Amino acid sequence: MFEATKVGRSVSKSEFKEQRDELRTQLLEVQRQLRETHIPVIVVVAGVEAAGKGEVVNRLNEWLDTRGLQTFAYWDLSDEERERPRYWRFWRNLPPRGEIALLFGGWYLTPIEHRFRGLCDDAALDAELTRIVDFERMLTQDGALVVKFWFHLNEKDQKQRLKELSRDDRSRWKMLPEKSKFSEQYELFEHVAERVIRQTDRGIAPWYLVEATDSRYRDLTVGKTLLQAIRARISQPLPMEPPPTADPLDLPDSAPAQITLLDQLDLTQKLERDLYKSELKRLQAEINELTWTAYKKQRTTVLVFEGMDAGGKGGAIRRITSAVDARLYRAIPVAAPSDEEKAHHYLWRFWRHIPRAGYMIIYDRSWYGRVLVERVEGFASEAEWRRAYSEINDFEEQLVEQGAILLKFWLQVSDDEQLERFRDREKTPYKQYKITDEDWRNREKAPQYKAAVNEMVARTSTEYAPWTLVEGDDKPFARIRVLSTICEQLRAALAEDVGASVRSVKRCGDHPERRAKPEARD
Amino acid sequence: MFEATKVGRSVSKSEFKEQRDELRTQLLEVQRQLRETHIPVIVVVAGVEAAGKGEVVNRLNEWLDTRGLQTFAYWDLSDEERERPRYWRFWRNLPPRGEIALLFGGWYLTPIEHRFRGLCDDAALDAELTRIVDFERMLTQDGALVVKFWFHLNEKDQKQRLKELSRDDRSRWKMLPEKSKFSEQYELFEHVAERVIRQTDRGIAPWYLVEATDSRYRDLTVGKTLLQAIRARISQPLPMEPPPTADPLDLPDSAPAQITLLDQLDLTQKLERDLYKSELKRLQAEINELTWTAYKKQRTTVLVFEGMDAGGKGGAIRRITSAVDARLYRAIPVAAPSDEEKAHHYLWRFWRHIPRAGYMIIYDRSWYGRVLVERVEGFASEAEWRRAYSEINDFEEQLVEQGAILLKFWLQVSDDEQLERFRDREKTPYKQYKITDEDWRNREKAPQYKAAVNEMVARTSTEYAPWTLVEGDDKPFARIRVLSTICEQLRAALAEDVGASVRSVKRCGDHPERRAKPEARD
Repeated sequence: MFEATKVGRSVSKSEFKEQRDELRTQLLEVQRQLRETHIPVIVVVAGVEAAGKGEVVNRLNEWLDTRGLQTFAYWDLSDEERERPRYWRFWRNLPPRGEIALLFGGWYLTPIEHRFRGLCDDAALDAELTRIVDFERMLTQDGALVVKFWFHLNEKDQKQRLKELSRDDRSRWKMLPEKSKFSEQYELFEHVAERVIRQTDRGIAPWYLVEATDSRYRDLTVGKTLLQAIRARISQPLPMEPPPTADPLDLPDSAPAQITLLDQLDLTQKLERDLYKSELKRLQAEINELTWTAYKKQRTTVLVFEGMDAGGKGGAIRRITSAVDARLYRAIPVAAPSDEEKAHHYLWRFWRHIPRAGYMIIYDRSWYGRVLVERVEGFASEAEWRRAYSEINDFEEQLVEQGAILLKFWLQVSDDEQLERFRDREKTPYKQYKITDEDWRNREKAPQYKAAVNEMVARTSTEYAPWTLVEGDDKPFARIRVLSTICEQLRAALAEDVGASVRSVKRCGDHPERRAKPEARD
Repeated sequence: MFEATKVGRSVSKSEFKEQRDELRTQLLEVQRQLRETHIPVIVVVAGVEAAGKGEVVNRLNEWLDTRGLQTFAYWDLSDEERERPRYWRFWRNLPPRGEIALLFGGWYLTPIEHRFRGLCDDAALDAELTRIVDFERMLTQDGALVVKFWFHLNEKDQKQRLKELSRDDRSRWKMLPEKSKFSEQYELFEHVAERVIRQTDRGIAPWYLVEATDSRYRDLTVGKTLLQAIRARISQPLPMEPPPTADPLDLPDSAPAQITLLDQLDLTQKLERDLYKSELKRLQAEINELTWTAYKKQRTTVLVFEGMDAGGKGGAIRRITSAVDARLYRAIPVAAPSDEEKAHHYLWRFWRHIPRAGYMIIYDRSWYGRVLVERVEGFASEAEWRRAYSEINDFEEQLVEQGAILLKFWLQVSDDEQLERFRDREKTPYKQYKITDEDWRNREKAPQYKAAVNEMVARTSTEYAPWTLVEGDDKPFARIRVLSTICEQLRAALAEDVGASVRSVKRCGDHPERRAKPEARD
């Protein structure tokens, strides 16, 4: 695969000067155009050690307008990063639409290094590469341009550079063959690199192999390639999307209401008041203990609450929070996104709020808005909400892999009960803020919401992040149902090892084992 | 001071129920009004251990609309926090305008704890309290409402609660008197608390002492106090500002141009080309080494570049970045703030980008815009830019205290030279994006800018963060001037201990000693 990078291409000083200014002008022009678009540009800079990746990045910083250009390297995994899913550190660096980010190694660095150093086998590497492909597809489907450069040196040249390096420089690099077994390790590295490139070289996010021996050739090639890639992307509509099929929600008015999972709920179930009080007390005491255990074991708890308007989400959430030490949980009511959030993939705003390990985070509405309100109201295109199911599943899988305990609740109430609660809210002063015209409008779309919920549960209720459908007509019954579910699940999860539930595949590039939790307020 | 909190106030269950609903309604109403204002509300929840601070926060989460309400606790100092100035963790939690943040202990927690545990003396505590007062003044002057609650228990009641606590609970609390010498430690804690409250109880950010023995009384009091405080703040204009005095910039057209520091620069100085080349090479090599040393020693380098349009900032910055490993620096061109940034104090956007320890960050324009363009163009009120000098000095002091090496450059060019460069930019294709009508307009305000720069330098050139005025007419001369200054300063600073330069006062609450840097890419 790397033959093409070993033919000794070079550019003379005069040629370089000649082409450079024209290239700079065009790069700046295309960057200006980019700013008007909704395209975030992600440039991955990877390759063999000593190929001059840093020099390339400096060159791009010189040629491009640094407004709208950012560079990120991935050293020094901080504990804030270690205590979150591995991709958190990449999500926090994704550029907003219209801007460019240069990533050193990006999500390729650790897997390649781990494999090169024998910390994992090809199977584990492949598992990780599958995730990478999904991740890059998700970004490009959202409108991003992903450009990946691989800089290569032939054995002789890398050996030569190694000679020129100071001991200091050498110590910085972990994937530089040792002098003694140079050829052997050079070959091993090429083997790993080839496997990685082959499996992640997709039309949506192609690799560009660049011969790095001559720096002038290298830099001009990068500049021209980037220029063409951005131009092409701007002139072309969003990446191919699957042809729209009939949306099951478009029911002819005559059509009989579908039978869904929700219809199988027995909403008449009730809980007698005294029993409610005693159960509540017992469960709240247990939850309080369990959250402290989770904190000590550094297991994050993520609770997602979705449900019909007036379904009782708030009441259920309060029964949890009033039992948990206020320092251990955060409740996040999902409101309208800020402009920074709008400038990113819709999951970005949820990634950015993932708590450090050991805490409980409660979402009052969540990323499921994508396949509920955004789908029903048509805010998201069909292609968008259709692919959201797998995007969400992957997001949740990464949370659980890191050790999070993820529970999702849907609170269902009957049509009559909802009507009654709406009226009650209008009557009670301190509840009025909770009822808006929109709530009334949504009632008319009940069948569509019902179908959307049904599909959501069917497609996203996973072994590692199950949905619990809660019969909500009787508030005491619903709350106890929620609390007892949480207790059972937490108890079970805290008994086992971190992430054991889904660690079926050991992935290449996983975080090193987490350290023991320091004393609170260290 | 605490007598008033030991009179045994209580509220009966029936009274409580009676008042609660009305209070909730009013709180929700005032919160709705708050959203329409530019007021961020910061509530500090502090007091003796076991007083039920957590319960109070839960209660407020129950009574208020959780949209626009966030809670933060300060445990588990992360290394991302440890590697930044102490107040970074508070800045990242400050609420946007129109919203409320509940802070457990906030910036009071660590100083009180350290003093109580004898880790510092009263002098060190007082030094920290001065900073706190400045910080709170800055927030309130920016429009914030700061409400501080102190919950107190008499000795008997605290002792009683201690009995009721499980061993687990007790271990969570660091300021709970040990059973053996209870009275003694209870007294010591009151001594510390009284000192802290007395010195930080200002009209702009008053303390409210609340008797915490009866939870119903405690919660109602908090609710009512908060309600009144927000109401009062909404109905009242911004806090008192010093009466505007004549702005030295408003020169009568007839007035003779002022003689300023800038006039004393000899702009005719030049550097001969060959000497430039050799010097550049030498200095860039040294900077490369110095940045690696800084990285290993975990010393952050902050470079601030301000200067006239076409003053040569970009060129100088590129001579630095091309010498530094691209993984070690970030160049931040200061552009227009996002809406999230607009919703906070103007320094917030700079705090949020402070790098972890050991890296170099280069600002192409900076927080000084407040006292330059914002002042001259009238975007900032006189009161705002006048107080900005001390706000900036304090901000920079905190950076240096944490160990940062902070250098500020002003690049000055003559009127004729600037004109020539403007014309050149218009002629050179890849430079055209750099020249706008605004640049031409600014030229007409040269005298005002000159005076503003003069005052800026006079007021913000500190021992720990000096300004370097650079004669910029001859680019080679200016660049060498910048590079050699950086080399000298870095060399000197890296030879001494972290922050030694300003650690004249040891403050109470300083971070624990930092750990050695882990291997790069650990």
